[in-house]
Amino acid sequence: MGIWRWLVGAPLKSSQVEHEEITATGGLAALSLDALTSVAYGPQAMILVLATAGLSALRLLLPITAAIVALLVLLVFSYSQVIDAYPQGGGAYAVSRENLGAGLSLLAAASLIVDYVLTVAVSIAAGVAALTSAFVVLQPLTVPLGIALLAGITVINLRGVGEGARAFMLPTFVFILGILAVIAVGLLHPAHAGAVAAAPSAPSGSNLAGAIGVLLVLKAFAAGCSALTGVEAIANGVPLFQEPRQVRAKRTEASLGALLATMLLGLAVLGVRFHVGPLPDQTVLSQIMAAAVGRGWFYYIVALATTTALALAANTSFGGLPVLTSVLARDDFLPHFFAMRGDRLTFQYGIVVLAVLSAVLLLAVGGNTDALIPMYAIGVFTGFTLSQTGLVIHWHRTRPPNWWRRALLNGLGAAATAVATVVFLVSKFTEGAWVVVLAIPLIIVLFQRIHRYYARVAKVMAVGVGGAQQPRPAAGGSLVVIPVRAISILTARALADAFALGQDVLAVSVQFDPEAAQAFEKAWAAWSPGVRLVTLLTQYSSVVRPLVRFIDTLEHRNPGRIIVLIPEVVPRGLWQQLLHNQIGVMLAESLRRRADVVVAIAPYHLPWDVAREPAGAGARRHRAGD
Amino acid sequence: MGIWRWLVGAPLKSSQVEHEEITATGGLAALSLDALTSVAYGPQAMILVLATAGLSALRLLLPITAAIVALLVLLVFSYSQVIDAYPQGGGAYAVSRENLGAGLSLLAAASLIVDYVLTVAVSIAAGVAALTSAFVVLQPLTVPLGIALLAGITVINLRGVGEGARAFMLPTFVFILGILAVIAVGLLHPAHAGAVAAAPSAPSGSNLAGAIGVLLVLKAFAAGCSALTGVEAIANGVPLFQEPRQVRAKRTEASLGALLATMLLGLAVLGVRFHVGPLPDQTVLSQIMAAAVGRGWFYYIVALATTTALALAANTSFGGLPVLTSVLARDDFLPHFFAMRGDRLTFQYGIVVLAVLSAVLLLAVGGNTDALIPMYAIGVFTGFTLSQTGLVIHWHRTRPPNWWRRALLNGLGAAATAVATVVFLVSKFTEGAWVVVLAIPLIIVLFQRIHRYYARVAKVMAVGVGGAQQPRPAAGGSLVVIPVRAISILTARALADAFALGQDVLAVSVQFDPEAAQAFEKAWAAWSPGVRLVTLLTQYSSVVRPLVRFIDTLEHRNPGRIIVLIPEVVPRGLWQQLLHNQIGVMLAESLRRRADVVVAIAPYHLPWDVAREPAGAGARRHRAGD
Repeated sequence: MGIWRWLVGAPLKSSQVEHEEITATGGLAALSLDALTSVAYGPQAMILVLATAGLSALRLLLPITAAIVALLVLLVFSYSQVIDAYPQGGGAYAVSRENLGAGLSLLAAASLIVDYVLTVAVSIAAGVAALTSAFVVLQPLTVPLGIALLAGITVINLRGVGEGARAFMLPTFVFILGILAVIAVGLLHPAHAGAVAAAPSAPSGSNLAGAIGVLLVLKAFAAGCSALTGVEAIANGVPLFQEPRQVRAKRTEASLGALLATMLLGLAVLGVRFHVGPLPDQTVLSQIMAAAVGRGWFYYIVALATTTALALAANTSFGGLPVLTSVLARDDFLPHFFAMRGDRLTFQYGIVVLAVLSAVLLLAVGGNTDALIPMYAIGVFTGFTLSQTGLVIHWHRTRPPNWWRRALLNGLGAAATAVATVVFLVSKFTEGAWVVVLAIPLIIVLFQRIHRYYARVAKVMAVGVGGAQQPRPAAGGSLVVIPVRAISILTARALADAFALGQDVLAVSVQFDPEAAQAFEKAWAAWSPGVRLVTLLTQYSSVVRPLVRFIDTLEHRNPGRIIVLIPEVVPRGLWQQLLHNQIGVMLAESLRRRADVVVAIAPYHLPWDVAREPAGAGARRHRAGD
Repeated sequence: MGIWRWLVGAPLKSSQVEHEEITATGGLAALSLDALTSVAYGPQAMILVLATAGLSALRLLLPITAAIVALLVLLVFSYSQVIDAYPQGGGAYAVSRENLGAGLSLLAAASLIVDYVLTVAVSIAAGVAALTSAFVVLQPLTVPLGIALLAGITVINLRGVGEGARAFMLPTFVFILGILAVIAVGLLHPAHAGAVAAAPSAPSGSNLAGAIGVLLVLKAFAAGCSALTGVEAIANGVPLFQEPRQVRAKRTEASLGALLATMLLGLAVLGVRFHVGPLPDQTVLSQIMAAAVGRGWFYYIVALATTTALALAANTSFGGLPVLTSVLARDDFLPHFFAMRGDRLTFQYGIVVLAVLSAVLLLAVGGNTDALIPMYAIGVFTGFTLSQTGLVIHWHRTRPPNWWRRALLNGLGAAATAVATVVFLVSKFTEGAWVVVLAIPLIIVLFQRIHRYYARVAKVMAVGVGGAQQPRPAAGGSLVVIPVRAISILTARALADAFALGQDVLAVSVQFDPEAAQAFEKAWAAWSPGVRLVTLLTQYSSVVRPLVRFIDTLEHRNPGRIIVLIPEVVPRGLWQQLLHNQIGVMLAESLRRRADVVVAIAPYHLPWDVAREPAGAGARRHRAGD
């Protein structure tokens, strides 16, 4: 508990959390990092696919990027409409739930969960790759660096404060301006092109015609779609903006679209111009940067800003998933503890689950971004398709002026992203997409099972039935059973507690040896505390088993409620606890699971000085006080 | 719990454990394996030291072995006297406790604990080395093999039955006869000498004269002393023998001495004759065996028997340490749980602690026997010295006929082992002995701290004071506090339980939001269960904190005993438990530690079909029953 407190900080009151409202510029920093930083892995994913068909295939980079940018423009318009329709924040789950029904909303929720986990894993892997491209000596540390970065982000999110939009500003703008500067220099001064270390050694001269060519283009397109992940974040976060909310949010969405399109196209042009190919220890972005501006101080600043921006992009998922899981828990689709806020008012279980799942992913692929890309984007594009389809239905229902033009736009978006999802699924299935195809239905089944269980429990417990209709509690008799092991002050106190608890008190002692049993019965009679003692002789070594059996038989004979009172020594220190038999705790746990009795633990708190004072000191003080 | 049961087996009655009595031959198998198997690492430890001074130093092997055998003879006579004096089993701890006082008996106990752990680690490491010498392909698996062997032995000991002396017989005698045959063949047919793979490549021609020579001899002697570990086991186990116990035990001790002396001397002669030296992937024993009988079927049988015998030698420590720690726990020197028998009537905590500590040692040295030897034997020789010194005092006290001759013999043994301990300490200090020099005093300090703590607790609780002098329990008033979250059958049942428990009942609800609080108070009033409701509004996110504070203030105002009754849903399945908020458990735990109140948990067991039945089935059945 000490380490946890130190890491996470003291408990917070709800009044201590500031509600910061953001401007359009702040929104760009806080909500669009996931989308913008995808230039660090999107173009690379395309080049990786094209390189398998040789150097000449690299020419296809530009047209494919153009197609992706076209899809981006469609998405930006489409999501501007989402902002209009759902100023309270239109996440795919909420939009689907309202327009498409419970079933499809669960598909949206499952896709989102997969998407959040992958965003964290991909962003961290890409962030570490940016770092190790700059500092190649760090290459062997790829996995530990990723886990450390993830751990840092997790702790910051468990603390739950201090990462408002302002903290995102500087690294975001250094990153954006840096990439734009690299593109500008690269386009204006192609002389730098000689700085490319080595031409990629891919097989050249392969045949691009025919079916293989089409599949290649589709695969490259699907891989490039990973650059569009995160475009939906602004529409989800409309309530965070300053008034006029929708105007500011739409302005941010448009800026995001313009910036992302510029960066993707610019990097594609430079990629072709510099003949960039896959290298084991250099990311594509690092190669382009080195070729454009050389590996000087500017390169290192942009590289570090890229790593920081990617870490912050991972951080945005930590804002999203715990809120989603808390909503799902409140709707009875996930265990209720996901809706419990921790001492720092964060949904700590969601944060921890996200951290663990993405750590598992990172470890499974050894921190390799390219291995994660085939899993990514399916979830995102499923969400895109669902929320835009939902919006078509929304326009059809509400019928504002020009509703059919809005519905057409969203319908186009839905169709395009649906096609992209299918392309993705087909072309990347064997490379990792199958994991997601397997995971999403499993998550949905989990949702449904949990939901059904909660529904049945609520029925059994009559939760939600009006108070007046509930049965009134009626008092009954009670029998207090108290296990005893020795005659001591602890026993005396526990018997006093037992008298306070019920009319009938029965002491039970478990004995392994007939002689010891007789001796104990004699001592009990000499004490005569006014309580009948029952002795259970056992041949087993556990005291729990015979007690549970005895209480079972009592239950059958006794009409009233049975209370088992367990006296327990509670020392102050944690270490001292090891020195006291935990039989009481074990017994309580066994009874709680097996028998229908009230289990009461009567603590006897040891005085502090028992643990601390040296043996001699007490005696000496005593003599002095005589 | 399922896996544990499967591994460990169903609970046993004490009548189900057979008490097998052993013959002299059985005693040799069950009690002397630790000593006999030390030929697998003792000679090697000497050769390793001598080889540092070059090939010519190997000649010293024979005289040093002779000195060790002389010490062995002294020890065997000395321990025959221990058998006379302590037919009830004279472990170093018991003998020291009776004759040397509590302080030195703790030194004996700490030495024994260190010794048991090292015996397990050394035997397993040597057993794996014997195996990998025979099957060199297994070399890379040294550590996993050791851990697997350790895990197997641990599980067998947790099961606690079926490894009587009989199970030890076959492998022990194959091992003994095999080694003796190797020695005989090696001595009779020196023609095999050519089979030695490679002469050791140690630096030759170094100067053996002067101080370095003396130190070398002392070091080699100290290393060879590891071959004497385990000589005391027979004297500890006298009660296991058939009558006449002492005669049989002494006969076994004598056989052990004769066998061990023969094996040590024989192997030393062969080691010199075959010019055996340290090799990275072959133990000294394996080299001697290969040189004497060739690497045929006989070699493999003896190698496998060696591994088995060493594993069984490790197993004997699992018989010894848990009994020692249970005695120490009963004497209040270790936590009491060490004296608790598990379901299989074994001292399971001692077994697990021994397994964990020796696994840590094995991992720390990477399964390398030679790295463990410098730590070994200090504990054993400290025990030797203490128990023989104790015996001198015993003879002096009891004065049987010829007592002074007996005292002289034990005095000689004590002096010789004391000198050996000092030699060991000085010559091996930097190579690992310092670990033991550090560990033993730390263990003693731990013993004393635990002892002092228990003494103070017993005083505070008046344990052991005659029953008649204890205060009688007196009944007082009680106030039952019951935290409520919703109006449901659970609440109604819990209130009924509360009525059964006490005169005064108070319901407490923690609320985060004033409106929700009002609504709940209204619903409560409509229900009117006859219990006053107190609402606690909090700004924190935890319900535990405000409840604990409220109960603190109640404690100050209320003269009687306060009982906090926590209603709790108990589903049947373990997985379903995840779906219920564990707030009740958390609250109970917090209250138990912080407040002086009785914490009672009222379980509400969910009907089985809540967890299993599909949603539709229940409704359908209901309709059918209408």
